[in-house]
Amino acid sequence: MSDNNFHPPRRTLMGPGPSDVPARILEALGRPTIGHLDPAFVALMDEIKSLLQYAFQTESPLTMPISAPGSAGMEACFVNLVEPGDKVIVCQNGVFGGRMKENVERCGGTPVMVMDAWGSAVDPGKVEDALKAHPDARALAFVHAETSTGAQSDARTLVELAHKHDCLAIVDAVTSLGGTELRVDEWEIDAVYSGTQKCLSCVPGISPVSFSERAQHRIANRGHRVQSWFLDMNLVMAYWGGKTKRAYHHTAPVNAMYALHESLLMLKEEGLENAWARHYRNHLALRAGLEAMGLSFIVDEPHRLPQLNAVSIPAGADDAAVRGRLLEEHNLEIGAGLGDLAGKVWRIGLMGHASRPENITLCLGALDAVLSDMGAEINAGAALPAAEKVLAAG
Amino acid sequence: MSDNNFHPPRRTLMGPGPSDVPARILEALGRPTIGHLDPAFVALMDEIKSLLQYAFQTESPLTMPISAPGSAGMEACFVNLVEPGDKVIVCQNGVFGGRMKENVERCGGTPVMVMDAWGSAVDPGKVEDALKAHPDARALAFVHAETSTGAQSDARTLVELAHKHDCLAIVDAVTSLGGTELRVDEWEIDAVYSGTQKCLSCVPGISPVSFSERAQHRIANRGHRVQSWFLDMNLVMAYWGGKTKRAYHHTAPVNAMYALHESLLMLKEEGLENAWARHYRNHLALRAGLEAMGLSFIVDEPHRLPQLNAVSIPAGADDAAVRGRLLEEHNLEIGAGLGDLAGKVWRIGLMGHASRPENITLCLGALDAVLSDMGAEINAGAALPAAEKVLAAG
Repeated sequence: MSDNNFHPPRRTLMGPGPSDVPARILEALGRPTIGHLDPAFVALMDEIKSLLQYAFQTESPLTMPISAPGSAGMEACFVNLVEPGDKVIVCQNGVFGGRMKENVERCGGTPVMVMDAWGSAVDPGKVEDALKAHPDARALAFVHAETSTGAQSDARTLVELAHKHDCLAIVDAVTSLGGTELRVDEWEIDAVYSGTQKCLSCVPGISPVSFSERAQHRIANRGHRVQSWFLDMNLVMAYWGGKTKRAYHHTAPVNAMYALHESLLMLKEEGLENAWARHYRNHLALRAGLEAMGLSFIVDEPHRLPQLNAVSIPAGADDAAVRGRLLEEHNLEIGAGLGDLAGKVWRIGLMGHASRPENITLCLGALDAVLSDMGAEINAGAALPAAEKVLAAG
Repeated sequence: MSDNNFHPPRRTLMGPGPSDVPARILEALGRPTIGHLDPAFVALMDEIKSLLQYAFQTESPLTMPISAPGSAGMEACFVNLVEPGDKVIVCQNGVFGGRMKENVERCGGTPVMVMDAWGSAVDPGKVEDALKAHPDARALAFVHAETSTGAQSDARTLVELAHKHDCLAIVDAVTSLGGTELRVDEWEIDAVYSGTQKCLSCVPGISPVSFSERAQHRIANRGHRVQSWFLDMNLVMAYWGGKTKRAYHHTAPVNAMYALHESLLMLKEEGLENAWARHYRNHLALRAGLEAMGLSFIVDEPHRLPQLNAVSIPAGADDAAVRGRLLEEHNLEIGAGLGDLAGKVWRIGLMGHASRPENITLCLGALDAVLSDMGAEINAGAALPAAEKVLAAG
């Protein structure tokens, strides 16, 4: 053995992801590697597909994990559904809507932007106006849960609008899957992608996706070849999808699939609705503490994501110094602001396994200690009792 | 805990990859997840870059792991270096040259194919003819070690030819990295990609890549935007590359990076030249056994890959039945033929950690037993003594 081995510090992960990965999932991850065409692995793939269908609440057979992070899952949706010349209505209310725009452009499509303020939900009225103004648009794309701001949009209503105007609906559910209500079939979402490292509490690196029948029809009838070989669903399907023999496409990340399987089992054991309720319950306690301390949320209450709490940095607090001290003194990671919100907010995640009462106590206690010591303008000592009251009330 | 947990069978992996992953790497993989922007993780990224430079024998700062399998590493090289209208000479002597052709086409480029028989090395004479016939070609692409056939091509000579004709050289080193001689700087390779699951004996899912200064210049001076957002090296560089602050691009697969780091440490501890020599030594013993048994290699001796041994299936042996029995009775995985070679050959890997004397004994013993029992035309009982003689001679 070398003394150069990497031994990560033990952190509590309350940023925008990765979230804490439970020991049970890490243990599954480290099991012996088998071949990606081993019958035992092929059986595991079937189980993962079925568990993902449960998590997404869909019966679509084109539901599977992409062997790369959420950004690649986003790209998989766009490269398969957007062709050169296609007009796509893209809603932007944070960082990830901007990334969608980039994707449309790189596919040779024309994005029509519907802009909302960072921290706001997507405005269905503006979306309807855009759909009416662009009757030739072929798809509507929006972020269900904006990780950069903590705002949640009304996916059901937006998808309805898209269909009313003959558009496919492409939805980013990276931060919502497993954390807040998401019903892919009932809401008739056409393409959805997520990530493993948020409310599934799995290791980062994999992106679950699902495509509706309508989307599959669009893919099957494309005029141009999909520009990415790696993400071409026609090929990926033959490996993950078929009822018949699996065609070799790429070598699946075998061990990451063990971990994903375990995380999806845990979600099923808890029950999807129970997981949503737990995220909401713990959010209420954290919120009580943060507000008692004097910090304010940047998102209006009806659109707040329980799993990602974005609050303004109080006067007298140095952003980087506070996060640095939380990490060094308390082994606690919270998230910085991203893009336009850099230096202005903190993003506190209560995602998946990290959404637990003891993490609320740790986070409020550590913030109170560091901010008080820095002389920041907060109500010192008020946070923990306020949170405790909510936790005790259950 | 659920009784649905997945417990993989214990296999010995002697196919074309994934290869056996040592316990030390699995243990690293399962360590607690930390944030992808944690200072401890950023330090790990620097170490990984430096260890990859050693493995590739390059000093290029644009050397890093792509957060997706080898197919995505291939795509990263093509989408960054090929622009619409570019002519690219593509050598094909197996499955993966064909995938390169697909990549060129999907980038809007025009592939000019140089075809060699499956099992042959790429013929430098044909390549030179193609380069002369197409003076407007902008790149030459070839596979150093063809995983589908077990043939190795003369990378140094091919790269020299490319440069003589003002082409960049794009090289697939998925199966060669860590197994046979590969010297990226000395041979002046411009873009090279590999995989973690072959001779590095790491878990599948990550693709190390490296780009020369010449390639970086080409990327920096593109006329069109890179068509993939996820694989755009201008963006990936800002996350992995910069001397300055890291810009968030995507969430790195943190745990997979722990494993990659450990596997690269192991390679450095052994020494690259020692690893190459070990692969060759063990190949000689396996070869002696296979030939004594009566099986013949499909690749001529000078071009045989020591880490991937493709042999003809003997008369009287049912391909799928033999592989099925090896797996079920001996927990041994060997590889089937791919593409044109399906049903005609077996591919026996001695890659990375799997390249060990005990695996040679297991493989030859199991093959001898199963083939004898099936009544296939082999010299029963001859393999093990022949291999033992070579092993004993060291």
